[in-house]
Amino acid sequence: MKAYRLLQWQQPPQLLDIPVPEPGPGQVRLKVAGNGICQSDLHLIHEWIASPPHIKVELPMTIGHEVGGWVDKEGPGVSGFETGQAAVVTIAGCGHCRYCAQGWNQYCMHKDAQVGMGLDGGLAEYVVAPANAVVPVGDMDPAEAAPLTDAGLSSYHAVKRVLPLLTGGSTVAVIGVGGLGHMAIQELKATCAARIIAFDLSETTLELARELGADECRKSDDANFEPMSADVVLDFVGAAPTIAGAAKMIRPLGHIVVVGRGSGSVDFNHRFMPYGATLSTTFGGSKIELMELIGLVEAGYIKPHITRYPLNSVEKALDRLAKGEITGRAVIVP
Amino acid sequence: MKAYRLLQWQQPPQLLDIPVPEPGPGQVRLKVAGNGICQSDLHLIHEWIASPPHIKVELPMTIGHEVGGWVDKEGPGVSGFETGQAAVVTIAGCGHCRYCAQGWNQYCMHKDAQVGMGLDGGLAEYVVAPANAVVPVGDMDPAEAAPLTDAGLSSYHAVKRVLPLLTGGSTVAVIGVGGLGHMAIQELKATCAARIIAFDLSETTLELARELGADECRKSDDANFEPMSADVVLDFVGAAPTIAGAAKMIRPLGHIVVVGRGSGSVDFNHRFMPYGATLSTTFGGSKIELMELIGLVEAGYIKPHITRYPLNSVEKALDRLAKGEITGRAVIVP
Amino acid sequence: MKAYRLLQWQQPPQLLDIPVPEPGPGQVRLKVAGNGICQSDLHLIHEWIASPPHIKVELPMTIGHEVGGWVDKEGPGVSGFETGQAAVVTIAGCGHCRYCAQGWNQYCMHKDAQVGMGLDGGLAEYVVAPANAVVPVGDMDPAEAAPLTDAGLSSYHAVKRVLPLLTGGSTVAVIGVGGLGHMAIQELKATCAARIIAFDLSETTLELARELGADECRKSDDANFEPMSADVVLDFVGAAPTIAGAAKMIRPLGHIVVVGRGSGSVDFNHRFMPYGATLSTTFGGSKIELMELIGLVEAGYIKPHITRYPLNSVEKALDRLAKGEITGRAVIVP
Amino acid sequence: MKAYRLLQWQQPPQLLDIPVPEPGPGQVRLKVAGNGICQSDLHLIHEWIASPPHIKVELPMTIGHEVGGWVDKEGPGVSGFETGQAAVVTIAGCGHCRYCAQGWNQYCMHKDAQVGMGLDGGLAEYVVAPANAVVPVGDMDPAEAAPLTDAGLSSYHAVKRVLPLLTGGSTVAVIGVGGLGHMAIQELKATCAARIIAFDLSETTLELARELGADECRKSDDANFEPMSADVVLDFVGAAPTIAGAAKMIRPLGHIVVVGRGSGSVDFNHRFMPYGATLSTTFGGSKIELMELIGLVEAGYIKPHITRYPLNSVEKALDRLAKGEITGRAVIVP
Repeated sequence: MKAYRLLQWQQPPQLLDIPVPEPGPGQVRLKVAGNGICQSDLHLIHEWIASPPHIKVELPMTIGHEVGGWVDKEGPGVSGFETGQAAVVTIAGCGHCRYCAQGWNQYCMHKDAQVGMGLDGGLAEYVVAPANAVVPVGDMDPAEAAPLTDAGLSSYHAVKRVLPLLTGGSTVAVIGVGGLGHMAIQELKATCAARIIAFDLSETTLELARELGADECRKSDDANFEPMSADVVLDFVGAAPTIAGAAKMIRPLGHIVVVGRGSGSVDFNHRFMPYGATLSTTFGGSKIELMELIGLVEAGYIKPHITRYPLNSVEKALDRLAKGEITGRAVIVP
Repeated sequence: MKAYRLLQWQQPPQLLDIPVPEPGPGQVRLKVAGNGICQSDLHLIHEWIASPPHIKVELPMTIGHEVGGWVDKEGPGVSGFETGQAAVVTIAGCGHCRYCAQGWNQYCMHKDAQVGMGLDGGLAEYVVAPANAVVPVGDMDPAEAAPLTDAGLSSYHAVKRVLPLLTGGSTVAVIGVGGLGHMAIQELKATCAARIIAFDLSETTLELARELGADECRKSDDANFEPMSADVVLDFVGAAPTIAGAAKMIRPLGHIVVVGRGSGSVDFNHRFMPYGATLSTTFGGSKIELMELIGLVEAGYIKPHITRYPLNSVEKALDRLAKGEITGRAVIVP
Repeated sequence: MKAYRLLQWQQPPQLLDIPVPEPGPGQVRLKVAGNGICQSDLHLIHEWIASPPHIKVELPMTIGHEVGGWVDKEGPGVSGFETGQAAVVTIAGCGHCRYCAQGWNQYCMHKDAQVGMGLDGGLAEYVVAPANAVVPVGDMDPAEAAPLTDAGLSSYHAVKRVLPLLTGGSTVAVIGVGGLGHMAIQELKATCAARIIAFDLSETTLELARELGADECRKSDDANFEPMSADVVLDFVGAAPTIAGAAKMIRPLGHIVVVGRGSGSVDFNHRFMPYGATLSTTFGGSKIELMELIGLVEAGYIKPHITRYPLNSVEKALDRLAKGEITGRAVIVP
Repeated sequence: MKAYRLLQWQQPPQLLDIPVPEPGPGQVRLKVAGNGICQSDLHLIHEWIASPPHIKVELPMTIGHEVGGWVDKEGPGVSGFETGQAAVVTIAGCGHCRYCAQGWNQYCMHKDAQVGMGLDGGLAEYVVAPANAVVPVGDMDPAEAAPLTDAGLSSYHAVKRVLPLLTGGSTVAVIGVGGLGHMAIQELKATCAARIIAFDLSETTLELARELGADECRKSDDANFEPMSADVVLDFVGAAPTIAGAAKMIRPLGHIVVVGRGSGSVDFNHRFMPYGATLSTTFGGSKIELMELIGLVEAGYIKPHITRYPLNSVEKALDRLAKGEITGRAVIVP
């Protein structure tokens, strides 16, 4: 089968012919329907010079961590899937620790290799994944579902964390209406009745935010961050001015979630936020949250927008991604 | 001023001229914009022969417990209201007990007299209420807001109790689409993404349920209560077949809320529901829940439908209510 | 190895020599340290005439579902355990459904065969278990830990469900201080500051309750069930008088958990409990709850009391169990 | 009666004879049993030169904000108290806003004058307080209960916020075992089974921590802050090294509460804490939390330690407080 593989650090990956992989014990093989590509793939290809300490990435490796496909074969000891069933691949935890036992697989501290990050990824015709990372998507097109595992899930995890605060009459500020932020607006619209204020630097993007359901749209600017105006702030940028703006807008007992990994650094002290307020960071989302998110899509609350590229155009797609020329999510279809 | 007063048990109330009441310490006087009437008013007038043991109703008393109006005068020691501010009246707790300290005013066990139930009610030109029972309604018409304090709030309290279970991909069954049930459907639609299945005996009512957002509508019949099909059941009827149907439909770890006070009685034992399921009853709603509900109306999620009758037609309105000829809520306007 | 096996329904099990089992993919082999026996083993042996519909029990099968031992060998595809590590076996969920994704393995509706109930159990020298059902117990003696998976976990699950209500100044009633109830008292004492009232029919048992930390002990009798005196009632009996007593004692917004499976049946209607109260049933406990419970034992809050019997005395132990002659938990040690 | 009053900013307060105050509408008069003094009284006396913007302090004013006493007289419109009933005074919210409706009186943004901070305080023979700020203390000595409203309540509020994380097998770090920290250790011991690690600079203080129930005691030093070792960190210091130490110790999904108002300032960015962790600040505690705390004292879990000084020695007591010569809480008894 064809697979887009990184053979050596700092060398361009190549589209090669390799054997179709066999699922081992506890694994499932999927026929790939599509694999979304994002900035972290560019980092892996262009910037990394070795495996980072907390995961084990050995080369050669097929790239691709946003995979959707159809269940093709269960490995030994696996049951419960049906051949041809549409599914996506999420993060696999160790299955034994307290995080995993609570369903917080993405915070598991014993997880190492993941599909596309240590294990061969989805830029190929077939992919093999740990059974506990494979999540059925019902009637969805698995190519459309693939990007849900990343931008969709990360934003949904942040939304879920603050949902109890988002009662009728409350206000949530969404800073940054990009890949995650535009999903968050739809997720908020589906799951709560709070007033949504969207902040972004681009007028075009704010127009999109309005269409997706934001009740009010404002340019990201300190002058527009009204003091103590929000019960929740979701910061999908994470730059110094946005974190500071979040702290300015948040109300007592409110909650700021910093999802974006902008290199923002702010002075934190006991006067940083109104008393009682909370500040947290997140990473990805859990398996049950992915299931719930799929439920939102199936119910029609969220429309994934993808652009398909054939596998032999993967380099062109990555190039356009690097140049910022892709709108929506690029999904590579074998 | 005119007031519709019950002078003796089992005697018809009369529309009388009485002095405008003065607000005492800790009280607020409202100019009445409207007062909703409901079955419990009919019970009070036609069926009661004395004050029930848990409250203190002394006659004569002005009838009316769903009051909306404009703040007219603060009594001694009261501050924080503005004259002319639109507001409604909810249940006042004692303010001192653990229930009140948690904001569960409606479950306070020391509350006795309430507006329209021990204290003079809202079928009058002016009403005096405890300050902690007066809740501003922003830009809403207080006559439209009045019924929110009863049918709207009782259904919203039930919805809030189960909201954490109503994630994407989950299902909620609403049994009985009457005064409370039709509010519940709108409240659910606004605050969660669960699939809503409405059950009722009337096809016309089910049509209304569909318009309000129910995803599926079914006739209330044991054959239509699919086993283990719902994460939450809200039973606004409370008859034996509906409680039994709720137990049949509920899933493990699901939650049945019996809001309706039908005289249904079922055999409860450890096999009544799937393991892990929960069964609860409710009474009214809390002050913060009323505030949240007002937020839902202000945001356009809920449309109150009222029919206005002048105060001198109160008897005609009560008569039509008794005959079941009123659609929506009848609100008496002085 | 020796194994105590049921060969045919309604025939006495036999202690036989069978080969040491090999762990398959996704499985772990434990060297058995001890296996607790309880009433459900007696039911299986004496009363069952076929496999119940919701699980798949095929004979012959080794009996024993409360297993503790030392990790001996990981099957293919399993990692993360250490040879010699002390562990117990809990209920395995399917791993794919929404219940499993939330960590509610015991409520998984796709689980079928369990160790000792479809899979060969722990009344043997070695046992093979699904890897996701194997829970390390740190420095505990695994023979002492074995019964935690049943009586300890079932009571702890009930306690966890109501813990948010058990604040300083609140009251919890524990009805039935047997195998589960005496664990519940210790678990409550460790995890909250509520006043504990223990109810039982036996004075001797109430004496034990007092030693374990109950603040007050009363004979189970309707006259002793004080109206609206408890924020939480844990009913470990589940007989009609105890469920009725629970409903009498519970306060508004309180929570009754019926854990015991006595054949009690009561009339439930909207006046059964004070408004706002909740009634639920439970089944077992989850994997994270078992981990937390092990944490309580390790911290010295709970003292398991077991009586050891050698494997070749298993028939004598079962006989004494049937006659009610065993105090504490009987654990069969190979 | 005697009252210790501040007549002008920056002038020494004086012990004067003034009339016994009358409770107005919505107020309650207490005969003072004792009034605790703390650093904020010293700030008020020595440092303030005017009322701060968020409250209204007009002089002359009797000092004292930690008051315990006996209910002496209800003002007009107040009911529900008994003369002679022991009670303390907590923070009064406006009673009308969303914070108050949820029972978060201390975060109410409309509260202005409080007893001892705008209203005449408790360093006097009698004090008048808003009825909704008066909390009965059962059989407790109200002089001993007085300090609970400040150090006890502030620490308990922090503990309550993180309690769901403090399950069996988890770890909580308490940094700073002073007035608040030594209460927190007792509160944690009473309400959860987590392992408690206490940090302080003083060996003597750590010895006290051990006596109060800390499982492990360590000197506050970066070398002793073990990375990712705690599920919860309660920082009662709030200095830069302690906040940084908290971020170092916290685990993914853990929660750091910064209660102490040391002038510490740290760089916050998305790598500050492990992903998923939470950082929050607090102010005081709510009325229901005070009731729960009183429940802990009544049940014997917490022993308040106070030193009594007569009212005519208030200056000596304040002087010793300023010099750090007081152990436990100084309570001034009229």
